[in-house]
Amino acid sequence: MSDQRILVTYLTQAKDLQKKAEGIAVGMTVGSWTDLPAAKQAELQPYLGEAAGVTPLETLPNGDTRGLVTVSYPTRNFTVDIPSLLTGVFGKLSMDGKIKLVDIQLPDSFAAGFPGPKYGIAGVRRLTGTHGRPLAMSIFKSCLGMPFDDLKTQFRAQALGGLDLVKDDEIFFADDKAPFYERIKAFRHISAEVAEETGKQVLYAANLTGPVTELVERAKRAVEAGAQCLLVNVLPFGFDILHRLAADPDITVPLMAHPALAGAFYPSPDYGIATPLLLGRLMRLAGADLVLFPSPYGNVALDKTEALQLANNLTAANATLKPSFPVPSAGIHPGLVPQLFADFGVDQVVNAGGGIHGHPGGATEGAKAFVAAIDAVVAGRSLQEAAEQSPALAAALAKWGK
Amino acid sequence: MSDQRILVTYLTQAKDLQKKAEGIAVGMTVGSWTDLPAAKQAELQPYLGEAAGVTPLETLPNGDTRGLVTVSYPTRNFTVDIPSLLTGVFGKLSMDGKIKLVDIQLPDSFAAGFPGPKYGIAGVRRLTGTHGRPLAMSIFKSCLGMPFDDLKTQFRAQALGGLDLVKDDEIFFADDKAPFYERIKAFRHISAEVAEETGKQVLYAANLTGPVTELVERAKRAVEAGAQCLLVNVLPFGFDILHRLAADPDITVPLMAHPALAGAFYPSPDYGIATPLLLGRLMRLAGADLVLFPSPYGNVALDKTEALQLANNLTAANATLKPSFPVPSAGIHPGLVPQLFADFGVDQVVNAGGGIHGHPGGATEGAKAFVAAIDAVVAGRSLQEAAEQSPALAAALAKWGK
Repeated sequence: MSDQRILVTYLTQAKDLQKKAEGIAVGMTVGSWTDLPAAKQAELQPYLGEAAGVTPLETLPNGDTRGLVTVSYPTRNFTVDIPSLLTGVFGKLSMDGKIKLVDIQLPDSFAAGFPGPKYGIAGVRRLTGTHGRPLAMSIFKSCLGMPFDDLKTQFRAQALGGLDLVKDDEIFFADDKAPFYERIKAFRHISAEVAEETGKQVLYAANLTGPVTELVERAKRAVEAGAQCLLVNVLPFGFDILHRLAADPDITVPLMAHPALAGAFYPSPDYGIATPLLLGRLMRLAGADLVLFPSPYGNVALDKTEALQLANNLTAANATLKPSFPVPSAGIHPGLVPQLFADFGVDQVVNAGGGIHGHPGGATEGAKAFVAAIDAVVAGRSLQEAAEQSPALAAALAKWGK
Repeated sequence: MSDQRILVTYLTQAKDLQKKAEGIAVGMTVGSWTDLPAAKQAELQPYLGEAAGVTPLETLPNGDTRGLVTVSYPTRNFTVDIPSLLTGVFGKLSMDGKIKLVDIQLPDSFAAGFPGPKYGIAGVRRLTGTHGRPLAMSIFKSCLGMPFDDLKTQFRAQALGGLDLVKDDEIFFADDKAPFYERIKAFRHISAEVAEETGKQVLYAANLTGPVTELVERAKRAVEAGAQCLLVNVLPFGFDILHRLAADPDITVPLMAHPALAGAFYPSPDYGIATPLLLGRLMRLAGADLVLFPSPYGNVALDKTEALQLANNLTAANATLKPSFPVPSAGIHPGLVPQLFADFGVDQVVNAGGGIHGHPGGATEGAKAFVAAIDAVVAGRSLQEAAEQSPALAAALAKWGK
């Protein structure tokens, strides 16, 4: 591994991109170079970054060039964790004018030190007994302040629609009315009852909260309490806790990464971290089995090229990392399922909140509409055709259109 | 506390800012409101956010208004930690178009649940025996790949100049040539020797790295090994680990927060988190005794108004939180000390890397030049005047000017 390099790509602007790349390569590794005595240079050479490529994109009014620069870093400069990577390739550099971190490509030997998804797409399909079609997930309409009984009713209603997954609202931290472990036990019981009735097992993703130093222990206790999946606000807590949860053999449930706070990083063209890296590569590396991200549809739409690249980073073949389930979210209604299928394929989770709870017939009908739409698309039938057999889908299409 | 409110201010744009504020207030708390039955409304009312104010700044070409909106959230919606706050007030909202998180104001009763700085400005002054003047700190020129003996030599040279603090390079994660605990022991020994010689005690800030789940334990072991201060890359690891380190009574050393990765959050006018909140309020709340941030000088300059607001958030009187030491960094040389003093006052740490190691006479002379400049400014003397008694300062002024 010692001679392996990590390739890091930045979007930036400068009079001379090549010089900029060389400045980053030195400044982010050994700090200075030309003024070092030869003996010192020989000693530090193995730690020296190198300019590995420049792609000019446009000439700016001020004469500067805007473009991509790639710098290669020796893997020996890093410990095998995301804080080390982010600090080492973008820490102080992030504050050095207009520069956006676009990609980090790790050699397999280095990536192998990361846990990656514990279950991955195949594992989550096994747990949900869902094959050959996208999964369907629902988000609680609202959790905060809701009486426990209301949440139980909401959970049952969603589960009865034949969904594969139901997740907590990510802002559900103050849960004194429906405490974490009690919620897990109660919903596990309800999902068993529903499975009796419908034959379909639904996984409940409980929002893992608490001090970052206690999350591993709380996750283990959650598993003992019957948890089937855990939702993690990865960015507010930091990538490394996802890494540690994924690496712990006692946490025997899939981990679902919520993108909360991601908008503080990715939307600017000049600053931050691009989504395919932030919510794609890094989430998979750290061990998310499922990753939510803004869909390229709806009113909080993500750029479509970025969304597809993000999904590709989650699913592309990798020597040591299992693939993660892409979960394009926000603005999803049954009429969008053909578009989702065309864009993200069979290995995705169709995830909706308002598109389920806002169904004229309620959450159960809303869930049924999604299941019907997914079955239709996989079978190559049109939604209109399927709506003839599914009043739930017909009602959804009538409300939201195609 | 149950009736206390948290005031959150955003910079955003909309056709109608008041409507936007109301949408955020509902969307980030109970999710929906007008369509709820009266009984449900009564039940959720205590959790409902409220629009608390709007400040239009400009009308945009498209007719929208750009401005500040303030939303008040009940403290009961949150657990007492920064991941809960950031997820609850900005999690999904960060992905909802052009919006920047500008400020979070906590009622004292809620802020009291956070540790805040363990030592604060008075405590760090006590530990360094430094009163009535800004402190002086130096950063290792380079750590990565350096032989242990070179680092010892570098440390001694900096310490001999009469500095109050010397810190690791923040990218120093892969430290096999000079392991964390061994480094702490060795530098503690050297600083004792230097204190014998100069009568001045220097604190060494060691870069705390490792799995986030082990940082508390590693910090305790570091203290046992003789650590005097710990450097933490707060943003790459997440705010909550700083909170837990600060709250642990066994970690009896000041915590120094490095701003690595901050540039991924603050520079965009439309997105992210403003520095006075990110590196000011939140760092203090979580427990940083010293906070580095980009100075308003030099080539990676922070906007001056923001830098001053940031420093004010670190030092302003607070019912329960000790003040944190502002450490305006980057581009600092002795000629800037009068400007630093005018801008940030006596309670700051003057921090330099190149401005010390780049001194024609070496690091010791570089450190002496800063100490002389600080003493002069506090005594109301000009640098030129002081340079007559300090060849080190004279040489620094000759190289870097005033």
